[in-house]
Amino acid sequence: MQQAAARQARLTKPAGSLGRLEDLSVQLAGVTGTLDPPLRHAVIFTLAADHGVAIEGVSAYPSEVTAQMVLNFLRGGAAINVLAREVGARVVFADIGVDGELPRHPKLRAVKVRRGTANFTQGPAMTAAEAERALETGRRLLVEEQDKGLDIALTGDMGIGNTTAAAAVICALTGLAPESVVGRGTGVDDEGLARKLAAVSRALEVNRDAISRGPGETVAAVGGLEIAGLAGVILEAAHHRKPVIIDGFISGAAALAAAAMEPLATRYMIASHRSQELGHGAVLERLGLRPLLDLDLRLGEGTGAALALPLVRAALRLLNEMATFDEAGVSERAIMIPTTE
Amino acid sequence: MQQAAARQARLTKPAGSLGRLEDLSVQLAGVTGTLDPPLRHAVIFTLAADHGVAIEGVSAYPSEVTAQMVLNFLRGGAAINVLAREVGARVVFADIGVDGELPRHPKLRAVKVRRGTANFTQGPAMTAAEAERALETGRRLLVEEQDKGLDIALTGDMGIGNTTAAAAVICALTGLAPESVVGRGTGVDDEGLARKLAAVSRALEVNRDAISRGPGETVAAVGGLEIAGLAGVILEAAHHRKPVIIDGFISGAAALAAAAMEPLATRYMIASHRSQELGHGAVLERLGLRPLLDLDLRLGEGTGAALALPLVRAALRLLNEMATFDEAGVSERAIMIPTTE
Repeated sequence: MQQAAARQARLTKPAGSLGRLEDLSVQLAGVTGTLDPPLRHAVIFTLAADHGVAIEGVSAYPSEVTAQMVLNFLRGGAAINVLAREVGARVVFADIGVDGELPRHPKLRAVKVRRGTANFTQGPAMTAAEAERALETGRRLLVEEQDKGLDIALTGDMGIGNTTAAAAVICALTGLAPESVVGRGTGVDDEGLARKLAAVSRALEVNRDAISRGPGETVAAVGGLEIAGLAGVILEAAHHRKPVIIDGFISGAAALAAAAMEPLATRYMIASHRSQELGHGAVLERLGLRPLLDLDLRLGEGTGAALALPLVRAALRLLNEMATFDEAGVSERAIMIPTTE
Repeated sequence: MQQAAARQARLTKPAGSLGRLEDLSVQLAGVTGTLDPPLRHAVIFTLAADHGVAIEGVSAYPSEVTAQMVLNFLRGGAAINVLAREVGARVVFADIGVDGELPRHPKLRAVKVRRGTANFTQGPAMTAAEAERALETGRRLLVEEQDKGLDIALTGDMGIGNTTAAAAVICALTGLAPESVVGRGTGVDDEGLARKLAAVSRALEVNRDAISRGPGETVAAVGGLEIAGLAGVILEAAHHRKPVIIDGFISGAAALAAAAMEPLATRYMIASHRSQELGHGAVLERLGLRPLLDLDLRLGEGTGAALALPLVRAALRLLNEMATFDEAGVSERAIMIPTTE
């Protein structure tokens, strides 16, 4: 990091004029231990799962949409497909907990831990063992992609009801009130928002004991299978000294859980964007992350992370390919003596 | 634009969840008159010129740096070279007013109108005819690139002293006080900032009559050759219905001048980023533009515009390549009846 910062100061530009891209290049050097780590193999982990709490009417869409959207992923028609092609990333689509049978497909990793979670307003979403298995599944997916070539990981999600689960995890891990975290997700109306708030409040109450036993049990009690899986992806990426771009609200909940399990993991995280979802700002603040983009996104799937990838790559190319003042024969900052006045 | 908005509403995502990228795709459709305009040939116009006001000690760097940086451009070592390669754009480097002899070079367009401007604290920076010639030069550069293939234009600049000239133009065109517009540019200290403020205030006073005669004379009196040239690039791009990504503070001053000459030109503008330079926010507000990036950039050269290009391209790919609900067999928003509660 010191070498990267020293090099930034020698490049042919006013010091600091590349703003946050300079900080990013220094972080990437620290994460990877080298000034010019490759970022060619970018892998987006889009984990799909269903949520028992959807039955409470917390989403604008029915649960069937989770499986339908996975099929859309496999046919290449979703936003994340378009963006992955555009930015040059590959996507790992994983069924870690969809409540339905999906066909075998070469592009789909079938790693279902269970068919959706239970309705966590009436008890735990899943057992601690299931949450642990989902987390290990995320770790394993990362390792498998690492074997194929992975320079940077990106997180993504699909799951009707998962902004409710993410909000519950965020409230449980931060102590924030549901009123400052629960948002409109895919776009619920006022009544839907009221149901969502009530569901999260009830979930926190019903699962109070489990929540008090730490982040693993919290994710089991009020989380989701994709949230646990993404926490595993993040922790394993950090373990291998790979940077990981954290997508929006759902990924933020997973990052918060990962950070609660292993605080050093935050050093490997890059926040792609500020989501429109209400509680996302608080998540970023707790993680100490400033997002790169602020475009009113609230789609998930890993779309924000994919959109941020070109900026991350650009930050590193600038550090490594710009000429220094010496190389270019450009005068450095000079003390100017005004000749008139 | 109606067709683009209608298509956005049919794509497999919650309505509005792609935020500002949706608006951007609708704007691009309106600018070009087609849903899927090509954006392959992106051309960055990096215009270089010197400023007589530099003698007042308003910059952290001496005027020689302008020519030195142009040589750095030609050798490919500057930030804009790195970013142009990274995002797939070509750069037109033009000497529209550098105060020095630059070598002939296949990558340099030699279109010098004059060797730098005069010190505008003591009279006009240039004659109205010279400013007009610089503007026409910008128009001509755009037309020449259009003949080679240009789908989208990006603006950029190089010129020691040009944040002072840009600030003067912005104050003159908006009526804002220098105190709310003049910033630290490449990084002047407090004394340099005081000299800069004094220079702008004096320039506005000395050139009051010229300023009252409209935007063309204003650019001549307190502007710069690259600012006039960039106004020409912008106006000509709009004339050919090409979108134009406006870089930071200097380009913002040029965009403001272009909009004062032809208000409809703003429809063709996309603001790349919010510059750290003090008065840039006011410029964007006057133009009615929201920037895509906010990364504490303050480098110029067209670097912010280049960084925004992948987002612009992504917005258009999303509009055109995502599946619709019908195509994908995904359930649209359903009225959810909560089954428990």
